[in-house]
Amino acid sequence: MKPNFSLRLRLFNLNCWGIPYLSKHRADRMKRLGDFLNMESFDLALLEEVWSEQDFQYLRQKLSPTYPAAHYFRSGVIGSGLCVFSKHPIQEFTQHVYTLNGYPYMIHHGDWFCGKAVGLLVLHLGGLVLNAYVTHLHAEYSRQKDIYLTHRVAQAWELAQFIHHTSKKADVVLLCGDLNLHPKDLGCRLLKEWTGLHDAYLETRDFKGSEEGCTMVPENCYVNQRELEPFPFGIRIDYVLYKAVSGFYISCKTLRTTTGRDPHSGTPLSDHEALMATLCVRHSPPQHIPSPSHGPAERSPLISILKEAWTELDLGVAHARWWATFAGYVIGLGLLLLALLCALAAGGGVREVAILLWTPSVGLLLGAGAVYLFHMQEAKGLSRARAELQHVLGRAREAQDLGPESQPALPLGQQEGDGTEEQ
Amino acid sequence: MKPNFSLRLRLFNLNCWGIPYLSKHRADRMKRLGDFLNMESFDLALLEEVWSEQDFQYLRQKLSPTYPAAHYFRSGVIGSGLCVFSKHPIQEFTQHVYTLNGYPYMIHHGDWFCGKAVGLLVLHLGGLVLNAYVTHLHAEYSRQKDIYLTHRVAQAWELAQFIHHTSKKADVVLLCGDLNLHPKDLGCRLLKEWTGLHDAYLETRDFKGSEEGCTMVPENCYVNQRELEPFPFGIRIDYVLYKAVSGFYISCKTLRTTTGRDPHSGTPLSDHEALMATLCVRHSPPQHIPSPSHGPAERSPLISILKEAWTELDLGVAHARWWATFAGYVIGLGLLLLALLCALAAGGGVREVAILLWTPSVGLLLGAGAVYLFHMQEAKGLSRARAELQHVLGRAREAQDLGPESQPALPLGQQEGDGTEEQ
Repeated sequence: MKPNFSLRLRLFNLNCWGIPYLSKHRADRMKRLGDFLNMESFDLALLEEVWSEQDFQYLRQKLSPTYPAAHYFRSGVIGSGLCVFSKHPIQEFTQHVYTLNGYPYMIHHGDWFCGKAVGLLVLHLGGLVLNAYVTHLHAEYSRQKDIYLTHRVAQAWELAQFIHHTSKKADVVLLCGDLNLHPKDLGCRLLKEWTGLHDAYLETRDFKGSEEGCTMVPENCYVNQRELEPFPFGIRIDYVLYKAVSGFYISCKTLRTTTGRDPHSGTPLSDHEALMATLCVRHSPPQHIPSPSHGPAERSPLISILKEAWTELDLGVAHARWWATFAGYVIGLGLLLLALLCALAAGGGVREVAILLWTPSVGLLLGAGAVYLFHMQEAKGLSRARAELQHVLGRAREAQDLGPESQPALPLGQQEGDGTEEQ
Repeated sequence: MKPNFSLRLRLFNLNCWGIPYLSKHRADRMKRLGDFLNMESFDLALLEEVWSEQDFQYLRQKLSPTYPAAHYFRSGVIGSGLCVFSKHPIQEFTQHVYTLNGYPYMIHHGDWFCGKAVGLLVLHLGGLVLNAYVTHLHAEYSRQKDIYLTHRVAQAWELAQFIHHTSKKADVVLLCGDLNLHPKDLGCRLLKEWTGLHDAYLETRDFKGSEEGCTMVPENCYVNQRELEPFPFGIRIDYVLYKAVSGFYISCKTLRTTTGRDPHSGTPLSDHEALMATLCVRHSPPQHIPSPSHGPAERSPLISILKEAWTELDLGVAHARWWATFAGYVIGLGLLLLALLCALAAGGGVREVAILLWTPSVGLLLGAGAVYLFHMQEAKGLSRARAELQHVLGRAREAQDLGPESQPALPLGQQEGDGTEEQ
């Protein structure tokens, strides 16, 4: 590759709010989104919440002259809602469905049914290998009492691990999507520290758009204003994150967001704001590459974040086990009740009562059984993430103890040190 | 690295048949397994069907002087059953749980509850990066009428994709485990063709063990003899597969299996036979490396296997959709029945009949609802694998059409050609 190699990448990211029957003006917004994407001709458009495959097919047809490659990531009962349109051929794609994603009995929240996932695309652009990831993490329905916090931390860790293990030969790594995480939230810090990804909003010198880069703003007519009350400018939960490896240098030239209004028609494209980034990838000689690695002195934030995440997951494991145990007791009670009913029905006399109570007691038993199974699975999933975190934490500590002389600095996510094993 | 670099790796793999309360002589077998592993001091011991975490903890304690590193892969409700003991420090580990893994209502088969997975370990041995994978695919309960065939093909594809995307910077790739696939089964061919992994049994010149390398043999007293009737020598479903990349050369010096009897006590360690392989990794100059890539002339088997797998998955999608539709009709019927019962109960007269029928109709509705959701999810999971296969198939065909002159040969799993997108 020539030393003066330079590549400009224009990206688009939007959570499209495309819930059939529920999202307002869906068809019109999809049409306008298609027109906009065709007009702007980005290199990559990464979309979330395209819940209806018909919407994807509509966009696919509309965008095919400008974006010949497209993919819809299928998952769960409803689908992951993730899709991508690319001007360049997609070399490879795959996906990883998060182990934990809410509770099936929280039907009104629906996240469990979506099978939330991360999609990976591999593109070859001018001899450069680009791994682009698109994702959507579990929604936050209440910031004060967030029952999904542990699941979102576990998802952020799984996302970070998936990126870490699948991008080892990539020159450039991109992650776009709706993380449902504020910039200082544990999951966001964990993801950035472990993968070494940079936040386009924080890195660019040329930003235009909503105040503080927010991607859900009170000016947007589709946004629930009450939910945004504690945040006068809105919240920033959608991201463009990136890094370059192996002798490449990447920078964010410009970042734009929509501002709650469509400049042409006056109504926005979604309840989220779109992100539009122009990234520049250059091939720099090694001495000019800003080191993405954190030396032992800089590794302390990683260690403290790993500890914080471990504690959060540990609490989650205890909580899941408590629910499984509780459900176990209810199963026992339900079995006792059934035995009693059988005895009553056999003995005659109160047969009618026995028949009447048959339905709720069988229901109780089945319901408690399902809750037991689900929370056992949750405990296993959280234990798994906790064990991975603990291993990384142990290795980061060891590397820190060894110091910079005896131990090469660990590039985030590519440790070279010795490891011990733990549960 | 020195040109005369050479590394000898001794591996052990066993499906331990460790089902609490059900597997015979479990405690005794675990004890003897521990003694054997300590005595032999392998580099890596990869185990499947260690269903009880207590058994893992027992082995961990027993083996810790010889194998200081260990990990248990937690998953599903019961656990993946996978664990590993290593003489060398484990640098990193993670896991991928298969999207499809049987049916929850097939409780007597139990696979769904295990959350079958593939575990990944990254080891650094003398400057060499070794990615070791351990897995256990869905069991085959009937070869004549295998209702899990599609799921196993989808699992084999997910396994191949996981290895492909996570091993791009590895020097040596190892896969051990119980694939529940015969050597000529579609899933096995797909896995080997797409990853480029070699079968230790087929490659080694020094094999000692059971006839035809079988890993379930009629001589084993724990094996169900009737199931093995069509196979006089037994079946080969456990594997050691490997490949070397980036200028390394790997060969299998020796392969041993147990033969249905423990040489000391007379009873076997499990209902499966153990595999013990000695691999030799050398650093050869590029001209001596046997090319793992298949040129266009050789790529035809890949294309035909991809086609075969696509057809199998396509049938599976149709089957899953049929079940979802059927369940949808049953839901409709159940709702009608409930409405009728409400009318009967309100009208009096046949109130007792209405009360009696309340339980089965609610049960029918909930059951059909669960079946609907599950098969919708199954259809999405299969469609996802089918789309990935179709993409790879399209690219393989294009590369073949372009011919060897205009197109560099695609190393399996690392295509360089142009891609178009499909659903």
